[in-house]
Amino acid sequence: MRLILISLLAGLLGAGHAFDKTCPNPYESCNLGDPTKLNVHLVPHTHDDVGWLKTVDQYFYGAYSNIQQAGVQYILDTVIPHLDEDPAKRFIYVEIAFFERWWQEQSENIKEKVRNLINQRRLEFILGGWCMNDEAATHYNAIIDQMTLGLRFINETFGPCARPLVAWQIDPFGHSREQASLFAQMGFDGLFFGRLDFADKELREKEKRMEEIWRGSESLSPPHADLFTGVNQNGYGPPKGFCFDAYCTDEPIMDDPNLEDYNVDEKVKYFQDAAREQSRHFKTNHIMMTMGSDFQYSNAHMWYKNLDKIIKYVNAAKDSNMSLFYSTPSCYLYALNKAGKNWTVKTDDFFPYADSPHQYWTGYFTSRPTLKGYVRESNRLLQVCKQTEALTANDAVLKRLESSGTSSYPLLEAMGVAQHHDAVSGTSKQHVANDYAKRLYKGRESCKAVISTAVKGSSDYLKFCDYLNITVCNYTQHRSKFTVFVYNPLGRKVNTYVRVPVSDAGGEYTVTDSHGAVVKSQIVPVSMSTILVRRNKGNADSEIVFAAENVPALGYTEFFVTKTNRGFASKVNALQKRSHLKRVEGGDVSIGNEYFKVTFNGKTGQISSILNVESDVAMPMVNQQLLWYNASMGNKESAQQSGAYIFRPNTSTPFTCTQNGIVTLTVLEGNTPLVQEVHQKFSDWAWQIVRLYKGMRYVEVEWTIGPIPFKDGFGKEVITRYDTNLFTNGEFYTDSNGREILKRVIDYRPTWKLNQSEPVAGNYYPVNSRMFLNNSKSQFTILTDRSQGGASLINGSLEVMLHRRLFGEDSKGVGECLNETGQWDDGLITRGKHYLLVDKIEDASKYHRELAEEIFMDPLIAFHDNDAPSEKSGLSADLPKNVHLLTVFKIEDGYWLVRLEHQFQKDDDPELSDPVTVNVKNLFAGYEVVDIEELSLAANSLKTDITRLRWSSADNSVADDDRKLHFSDPYDVTLQPMEIKTYRIKMIKS
Amino acid sequence: MRLILISLLAGLLGAGHAFDKTCPNPYESCNLGDPTKLNVHLVPHTHDDVGWLKTVDQYFYGAYSNIQQAGVQYILDTVIPHLDEDPAKRFIYVEIAFFERWWQEQSENIKEKVRNLINQRRLEFILGGWCMNDEAATHYNAIIDQMTLGLRFINETFGPCARPLVAWQIDPFGHSREQASLFAQMGFDGLFFGRLDFADKELREKEKRMEEIWRGSESLSPPHADLFTGVNQNGYGPPKGFCFDAYCTDEPIMDDPNLEDYNVDEKVKYFQDAAREQSRHFKTNHIMMTMGSDFQYSNAHMWYKNLDKIIKYVNAAKDSNMSLFYSTPSCYLYALNKAGKNWTVKTDDFFPYADSPHQYWTGYFTSRPTLKGYVRESNRLLQVCKQTEALTANDAVLKRLESSGTSSYPLLEAMGVAQHHDAVSGTSKQHVANDYAKRLYKGRESCKAVISTAVKGSSDYLKFCDYLNITVCNYTQHRSKFTVFVYNPLGRKVNTYVRVPVSDAGGEYTVTDSHGAVVKSQIVPVSMSTILVRRNKGNADSEIVFAAENVPALGYTEFFVTKTNRGFASKVNALQKRSHLKRVEGGDVSIGNEYFKVTFNGKTGQISSILNVESDVAMPMVNQQLLWYNASMGNKESAQQSGAYIFRPNTSTPFTCTQNGIVTLTVLEGNTPLVQEVHQKFSDWAWQIVRLYKGMRYVEVEWTIGPIPFKDGFGKEVITRYDTNLFTNGEFYTDSNGREILKRVIDYRPTWKLNQSEPVAGNYYPVNSRMFLNNSKSQFTILTDRSQGGASLINGSLEVMLHRRLFGEDSKGVGECLNETGQWDDGLITRGKHYLLVDKIEDASKYHRELAEEIFMDPLIAFHDNDAPSEKSGLSADLPKNVHLLTVFKIEDGYWLVRLEHQFQKDDDPELSDPVTVNVKNLFAGYEVVDIEELSLAANSLKTDITRLRWSSADNSVADDDRKLHFSDPYDVTLQPMEIKTYRIKMIKS
Repeated sequence: MRLILISLLAGLLGAGHAFDKTCPNPYESCNLGDPTKLNVHLVPHTHDDVGWLKTVDQYFYGAYSNIQQAGVQYILDTVIPHLDEDPAKRFIYVEIAFFERWWQEQSENIKEKVRNLINQRRLEFILGGWCMNDEAATHYNAIIDQMTLGLRFINETFGPCARPLVAWQIDPFGHSREQASLFAQMGFDGLFFGRLDFADKELREKEKRMEEIWRGSESLSPPHADLFTGVNQNGYGPPKGFCFDAYCTDEPIMDDPNLEDYNVDEKVKYFQDAAREQSRHFKTNHIMMTMGSDFQYSNAHMWYKNLDKIIKYVNAAKDSNMSLFYSTPSCYLYALNKAGKNWTVKTDDFFPYADSPHQYWTGYFTSRPTLKGYVRESNRLLQVCKQTEALTANDAVLKRLESSGTSSYPLLEAMGVAQHHDAVSGTSKQHVANDYAKRLYKGRESCKAVISTAVKGSSDYLKFCDYLNITVCNYTQHRSKFTVFVYNPLGRKVNTYVRVPVSDAGGEYTVTDSHGAVVKSQIVPVSMSTILVRRNKGNADSEIVFAAENVPALGYTEFFVTKTNRGFASKVNALQKRSHLKRVEGGDVSIGNEYFKVTFNGKTGQISSILNVESDVAMPMVNQQLLWYNASMGNKESAQQSGAYIFRPNTSTPFTCTQNGIVTLTVLEGNTPLVQEVHQKFSDWAWQIVRLYKGMRYVEVEWTIGPIPFKDGFGKEVITRYDTNLFTNGEFYTDSNGREILKRVIDYRPTWKLNQSEPVAGNYYPVNSRMFLNNSKSQFTILTDRSQGGASLINGSLEVMLHRRLFGEDSKGVGECLNETGQWDDGLITRGKHYLLVDKIEDASKYHRELAEEIFMDPLIAFHDNDAPSEKSGLSADLPKNVHLLTVFKIEDGYWLVRLEHQFQKDDDPELSDPVTVNVKNLFAGYEVVDIEELSLAANSLKTDITRLRWSSADNSVADDDRKLHFSDPYDVTLQPMEIKTYRIKMIKS
Repeated sequence: MRLILISLLAGLLGAGHAFDKTCPNPYESCNLGDPTKLNVHLVPHTHDDVGWLKTVDQYFYGAYSNIQQAGVQYILDTVIPHLDEDPAKRFIYVEIAFFERWWQEQSENIKEKVRNLINQRRLEFILGGWCMNDEAATHYNAIIDQMTLGLRFINETFGPCARPLVAWQIDPFGHSREQASLFAQMGFDGLFFGRLDFADKELREKEKRMEEIWRGSESLSPPHADLFTGVNQNGYGPPKGFCFDAYCTDEPIMDDPNLEDYNVDEKVKYFQDAAREQSRHFKTNHIMMTMGSDFQYSNAHMWYKNLDKIIKYVNAAKDSNMSLFYSTPSCYLYALNKAGKNWTVKTDDFFPYADSPHQYWTGYFTSRPTLKGYVRESNRLLQVCKQTEALTANDAVLKRLESSGTSSYPLLEAMGVAQHHDAVSGTSKQHVANDYAKRLYKGRESCKAVISTAVKGSSDYLKFCDYLNITVCNYTQHRSKFTVFVYNPLGRKVNTYVRVPVSDAGGEYTVTDSHGAVVKSQIVPVSMSTILVRRNKGNADSEIVFAAENVPALGYTEFFVTKTNRGFASKVNALQKRSHLKRVEGGDVSIGNEYFKVTFNGKTGQISSILNVESDVAMPMVNQQLLWYNASMGNKESAQQSGAYIFRPNTSTPFTCTQNGIVTLTVLEGNTPLVQEVHQKFSDWAWQIVRLYKGMRYVEVEWTIGPIPFKDGFGKEVITRYDTNLFTNGEFYTDSNGREILKRVIDYRPTWKLNQSEPVAGNYYPVNSRMFLNNSKSQFTILTDRSQGGASLINGSLEVMLHRRLFGEDSKGVGECLNETGQWDDGLITRGKHYLLVDKIEDASKYHRELAEEIFMDPLIAFHDNDAPSEKSGLSADLPKNVHLLTVFKIEDGYWLVRLEHQFQKDDDPELSDPVTVNVKNLFAGYEVVDIEELSLAANSLKTDITRLRWSSADNSVADDDRKLHFSDPYDVTLQPMEIKTYRIKMIKS
């Protein structure tokens, strides 16, 4: 499939002419109805999950019908002839992961029909992402990538008039503000969705606020991140009684009066009632009805035949005063825009989502933590893949690879699929989750070959070890010499620590850098938790740890490691020191480096304080524990059980993961010049290792959870909790998709009075990269390596959910308990890291912004056996600290897609929050930029070709969206706080 | 709907030109494959039950999808565009009850497409009846009518090239020989079906006898009733794994190697295996695969897309040596015909059907006995309706009626629907059975108006009483004078007895005939069973009984009844006699008339003998009892339960319906000059009344069963059993659809060795009109008033199943227990009649033939208040005794459809079995036939326009089917035994 797409891209893009055409008025085909009537926009649509109960390919073909009768191929197959036949009919299509598969199979005849329909906007792409991404467990980098993949396919295949105008997040289980901001920056005129808190919806219905302006950013000036946002009356289904799909059971319109069961009069009345009831909640004389649902229209005829009849009979009814017609969300949006109303403004987000008092969809913030971790880690690999692919000197070799399907595309597509709202969310069936992982694995293998080829000229030069986190690397552990390759995907140098699994028995190791200088290293014995976790996967007994300092921006450095006998090594490598693990019994223990001192209570084994020694901020910990909530199996208040989607503990009090309340401590003793570690055993299945690395400004906490015991029959939702002594007034903060920060307040929603019915689950929020709490002076921040759920249920306390093993099922369709049994069938083990910061309030943002970027784009480690370590940077100079190089991607010969991002919010830091300018003319080492065009965020249009609709808002924040920035130097890129700019650049080798 | 069809008929028929065109070679479009390969005829088809789990109209529209996802409108809607688009594709359609509904809704554009497709025979009508009729519970008159209704619609709408060539009985549960004979006479070249005894099929597979010549008649000379008959390998479904319908769950063909689950190689291999396995059982290098099933193709695209792929990949497979192509049953048949093979000949039938050792489909022979009775009785009304409609002097008034939808059509269509194999069979859900009855009721009401109008000039002149069988008639029971209208639908005069419900209190009745002569009458008190049965429906206390003698052929006579006070009546009507009911205790009782004497054992209350006093044949009865089988709820041998389809008693011994073995006798005492009755009470829910009428040559037994008790939790299958002392060697005889007689032998099948696993159910056979047993001298015959199941399980014994009430379910799809609760919810009561004959063997056939005709077409009684009784005959002379006037139907102005039938088998009677000639020139009183054309049996073609395919049979019985009979007088109709001739005649009033 990829081969075809690549050649197609090449063909369509030609010599960089993809944006030559513009689309003057994409709304011109819209039916705006009858101003004297209630206009009912009937939107035939299908919602095609990119994997859920079945895999994406199974859904495409319609395999495994015994699980679910759903075949996407048939949807498009049967819709097209109906559109082709009747100019009144319309249809929207959303998920490009499916559309692209379908398109590749079509004859030129069908393709021509489709092009015509798209040009008439009767077949209209809505959203147009590779998938309809989750908003709670996704990172903005992956969101942008998956939207770009879909939207660029549309642009390249169908041109500018096919550009989706409306975003469509009808199924995700809650909505992030960052998503709105990104959509706005992608040029969408509006967003519709289906799921929001039931009480929020009730109030909106009452106050006719089902549609308003959503301000997606506190930093970007309105309306740049403003997005007109509408709530669908019926989620995304039709009104009750009007589901005419092949797999629905509503009565068809039976309009022959000579046959039994004639029901036209009854159906017309029901429809009129439904339309009038809906219109009571909306501001204009237009309403939209979503006439479709999951995988519907596989027999399009059934829908259209009955819709044709409903349109005919309702429009003809004397008492109707209604005009029903086929429409699309964009045409409905346009009608709203033309209505000239004033709209209210919303500034918070739509988390958490509850559809009734005991159904909080906050479990999926954490569900399938290893999949969530794999997705995040794969994003880093993908960025490295795209960077090296883009800037390689080995174009010819890479092209040969491409011709066999090896490129960044498999991983791009796998990541596109993985962002789906039942993928990274952890809410698919197990076999589908396996398929997501398999796709990522295949994509990663392709990317590893790309990276190796791009950097080293051959696809198997670099050896990657995917299990370094559990000290497994077959390549290194019994090898006496090897080279460590450390790639830094960031736009400026970083320092990092490398840990390599080795067998230390009878040897010592010498590490030299690319200049031949010996680098200080430390041998650290393998932890008990790792030995338990990795089982028979590997048998390295130690890790060799060393600092990789100043790893070049967008580049790499290498280290040569040799093992010698101990005597020899001692001579040459006097720097290498030994350490060992020692059980601590009684008495407090502390570890410390230049920045932090962490103290452990000798009695409880818990962290008792974290002191920032640099700024002298002490953060006493009342408790720091691993705990578990007992998952509800339903109770008399509600039968709702905790499940893949829903979090519902059966009591608000979590239970300890220890056996007797005591955490067993082990400390790394001896010479520990580079890393100090305290190992905490809460139980055989719950561990923490707290580390301080020399020169690193964070406290690393590696947690290991699993196999979660199940013999007691209790479902367990395991958390880590930090109880500080800060008085926080019930407030804390979480990030939104890894970017802007939102304030959260316990038992409170900003726009409606919350009647809290689930004191734990109802206070959980997505944590994509960080959460923190503070008082006026100090801040305690936790950064994560993946998306998780988090809360602050009592003053000063932060908790993060790490893992879930459930024996109930939440009745949201997945039909399986979230009981991941893992590789050894006794229960999945998950391991991850938290990074803790304790700072003065005024420094806190600066440090968490920088650290978050380094975690999210941490260096990629690989190995090879060439003993001449080298070093290279892809940038001619480091970028400023507040600029993140989000994307480097070669889109065709001579042309690159580049995104630069201001990674600070407006008020984060007195200096770093200032606008910043980068000149890109010679940014990339060895290249000169000779042309630059700014694109929309999803790179599917020239920025100037997009004129978004203007809306009047209640707060008079109407502004001009046509910001044209004129630079004295066209290669100067100036970024406002939180701004992302997307460019197509043309470069030549310099 | 009817209005449209009528005008359409008129339009197309024009001035009698319906048969002007002929169709030279209907097979010319057939693909005959590749002689060097295995040719696989893929037949896309849908099997659309004319009611089953849903009503026919619900199926048409696809309502009640929660019961079954099935909507016929969508099938035709979605198939047509696929045929239109691809000339390789084909589809067959079968049930005209659905097609006609659909056709009426189509635009001229679609109609034109359909006409083209039909002319190319790519959309091919197969069978083409109004429904696919049941074969076990149907009467030949109704079969011919329903086939005629469908086939004439096809001919009139699409012309001769649309004529179905092949009959298609893929679902009925066993197959009658008469059905084959009728199909042959309708001009079909072949028949395919799906269900036959599992052991029969096994043997046929082994011996390659899946296809052979079925000789449908012992009387008609071959090949007039010969029908090439094929058994479908897979019933009517596709081979395992290849069901591609929207509601199937087989895997689609997944042919993109880049996607997961690619399965082309696997699917091709499975298909090849299936085709090769099938071909092992068939004689030629052609096989047919039925690619469809119940209500499939509602999303035709799914089927065709995957079939296209299977054809492509199997044909392309190097090792295939197969040619797959879209085909039809007729093209497959044609390929078989061209193969020039010799075929074996079958002369018996396919009853009973079993699909495994404990699954005998013999329950439905009796299921829903009241529906079966209503259908049979409605047939009589329909024939009267058509006769009077055809021969009325009131054309103008009738035409006005027609314009409001009142004609014979509603009943014709309702009867067409009722013959369906889940209708009269009693195997539908209860709500559907109710719908069948409702349709019949509406049709009957329409016919009553037609009859009244035709005969009397206004639609409400005649008052009909539907409940005369339970002595309920609101019109007569409190009226002091009224006229009784007695219509005889037979082609010769009959004698009958009329029983009119009256209130006798304080009055006597005088009956005078149309000549003013007083007619002897008798007052009979209402029986106890009738009082129990009718409950609050009526309160007549007596019936006035009198003989209607010599009721004119195809005509009526009338009687005037007046009630006077007793004194007065005694004077004028000295003939009227009183009788009363008296309990008999001890001592034998006998009743007798000129022909029979029936004796009852005073101790047991049972009939102890029937003596034919005329021919002096005594038939002692060892027992005559009402008994019940305990319906199985499954046992260790098999979980099979008795249900609507399946009969499975849990023991071979039936239980008595009496409480203590004693039948209570009541006898009609006093003056009983016209009728003598003995009333037998077996229990509160099981009764018999044995009657002898003066001058009538039969013993009438009226049985009343119900409400069958249910509190003991036992399902009951109630039978009547006559244990004679004849030694019958395990042999007995049953009719086939009311016509020819087949010999049955206990625990035996003529063409394979039976391993009897159900000694009761496996010996049951359909009894449509009669069953009998005999030895070399005497015969005991039971004639029935409806279809029932019957058996002879021991020498000399005949049993008939009367009623069934079940609490199990036989898992054949209907999903409801056959537990008819009836009007009062405590259990349905059913009442019917048996007519017993005891004869010398040589007279037996003559008498049962004549009596069967009189039962089946017994006079229709109605009432009015005009006190001038009249009389009229529709024929100028009576027909000979062996000729039955089967059909008189006016098809357009000046043209009539007439069927004459020889109602004797070849060896029935030395005289009456001779060929017989009738001259029709002046047959109809007041008309003169001026033109006559012989048609095929279903009246959809000139007889001479049909040239059936010729087949070589193993018994060398090849004969010429082009029998051209030349008469000296063109209006002489000569009939061979069992021959039916169909004519279109043109008449003018003489």
